[in-house]
Amino acid sequence: MVKLIKKIQTFAHQFSLWQEGSKIVVGVSGGPDSVCLLDILASLSKKKKFQLLVVHINYGLRGVDSDKDEVFVRKLAQIYNLKLEVLDAKKESQRKPTESFLRELRYDFFEKIRKENKFDLTAVAHNQDDQAETMLMRLIRGSGLLGLGSIRPKNNRIVRPLLDTSRREIMAYLKNKNLKYRLDKTNKESKYLRNKIRNKLIPLLEKEYNPILRKTLANSAGNLANDHDFILKSANKFLEKADFDKEKNAYFFEDKKFLKNHPALQKQILRKIIFNLKKNLLNIESAHLEEIIKIIKSDKNKSQQMKLKGLKINKKGDIIHMSY
Amino acid sequence: MVKLIKKIQTFAHQFSLWQEGSKIVVGVSGGPDSVCLLDILASLSKKKKFQLLVVHINYGLRGVDSDKDEVFVRKLAQIYNLKLEVLDAKKESQRKPTESFLRELRYDFFEKIRKENKFDLTAVAHNQDDQAETMLMRLIRGSGLLGLGSIRPKNNRIVRPLLDTSRREIMAYLKNKNLKYRLDKTNKESKYLRNKIRNKLIPLLEKEYNPILRKTLANSAGNLANDHDFILKSANKFLEKADFDKEKNAYFFEDKKFLKNHPALQKQILRKIIFNLKKNLLNIESAHLEEIIKIIKSDKNKSQQMKLKGLKINKKGDIIHMSY
Repeated sequence: MVKLIKKIQTFAHQFSLWQEGSKIVVGVSGGPDSVCLLDILASLSKKKKFQLLVVHINYGLRGVDSDKDEVFVRKLAQIYNLKLEVLDAKKESQRKPTESFLRELRYDFFEKIRKENKFDLTAVAHNQDDQAETMLMRLIRGSGLLGLGSIRPKNNRIVRPLLDTSRREIMAYLKNKNLKYRLDKTNKESKYLRNKIRNKLIPLLEKEYNPILRKTLANSAGNLANDHDFILKSANKFLEKADFDKEKNAYFFEDKKFLKNHPALQKQILRKIIFNLKKNLLNIESAHLEEIIKIIKSDKNKSQQMKLKGLKINKKGDIIHMSY
Repeated sequence: MVKLIKKIQTFAHQFSLWQEGSKIVVGVSGGPDSVCLLDILASLSKKKKFQLLVVHINYGLRGVDSDKDEVFVRKLAQIYNLKLEVLDAKKESQRKPTESFLRELRYDFFEKIRKENKFDLTAVAHNQDDQAETMLMRLIRGSGLLGLGSIRPKNNRIVRPLLDTSRREIMAYLKNKNLKYRLDKTNKESKYLRNKIRNKLIPLLEKEYNPILRKTLANSAGNLANDHDFILKSANKFLEKADFDKEKNAYFFEDKKFLKNHPALQKQILRKIIFNLKKNLLNIESAHLEEIIKIIKSDKNKSQQMKLKGLKINKKGDIIHMSY
């Protein structure tokens, strides 16, 4: 099992996930992935002088089982002799919470604890299988480069040391070290899209089309994430030169300067502007961006405007004005 | 059915597929897609002053049926009063030809006829369903942005006016205009990967996951192709400044200048160099590019070299030398 620890060290080095002495908040649900993650970080912490802290969220979504998860994680923190922070989210998640609501709740809590404790990073247990599932799910729903790039090894303060590790490797590690974990029984029902993809589609594709599909998809996702990052950085270069009025939450830029960029870059610039204004890209599709580009291209003498998902886009003379 | 013609004109305009007076070679197999393409181009040719010429390849892969296809296309050319060129490829395709061999044979013949007749373009009948199938196939096999971008509306002299049109729209058009076509019966067997994806996987995904999957995938492929094009153009900017020795078929460039590019762009630059040297990217994987980048990054004082799929990569001092 030294093998898996070495593999994760190599991966962490490749993506500069941490340094010696990093203070790392570890998200632990009690499931196999996060139990493995915690054990590996604990194993590395002497050599690497890590400081660890465990966080757990009790969503209360699976009744008694949720409370049993919490008890399990409390014991785990004791065993590793680590400080633990638990969020009781039973109230917040009562009215049929969406996946994105729970995700926001989770990352907000992780970030709050990280800041309060002046820690450097938060580690979460996404693995290669999650990566492949996410990519397939986004492909099926329709997604561009941003979405297909899927889960990143490092995203601001969040690190994902297991992202190149398969669920099979994780299970083998746990078995070998005789580590206990909790299973989320709702995973077994093909009730939600992700579970259906995990339990039905991926096994079918691996049986009939490509036996190493998970690895293949995870590799592609990594490469696409890299490509996306390049386009995003190119878009940022343009935005550094655009005017931003903080008070009015509005961007200004010149049509000609915008239009001399490649069409793919034009779309990425608009996506970044919209994200900066709205703080999200919900329901913004490629066709919307094309509509905005039409206005930017439109005749100079006419003053043009449009509203789109709460955004206001104006063109007066050769100046574009975008606000929210 | 005017609707489909209008749609195709809009698509052709969007991607600048042709101009008034374009001389277009039309690839016709006799199947529904190419019969529809030919009819639409013929319908447009008065208004657009097109000049058309039909090409057909008899692979002889389906015995008597192949010859019946040829007879059918000969009649078709007569009906539209168009010149026809047929390639008898029975010999070339005897020993279990691969898909890529047949593709090369086809495009070489199309290009030969186009040049001989001093025509501008060759139109082929790829449609939205082909696009979705290709994307899924490449995703399953493992592919980066280049492959996932899949089939382009325009690629040098090749144009694909039906790429945004679904097979269903094509069939409706043919029925409405009472046009006859030939069916390739081997399509119905799930013998080859593409047919298996077409006949099994896509119907399953549309039933269980997304009813408009084909359209969704085709849209994503279009956006990814656009993103890829941007990265490729950025790579070309670097290559314009690199030294190329035509006689030795070798590239030279400075390590520092290469390494200051984004990692995604570094890979694209290497892909373009390899393509320019080898004339193809067969069996070149992302991991190979990473190995080359390692050499480029390696210590200045050591002279380094490697061989990879017939390529020679040398580093002496701060100069990289790549040849084939």
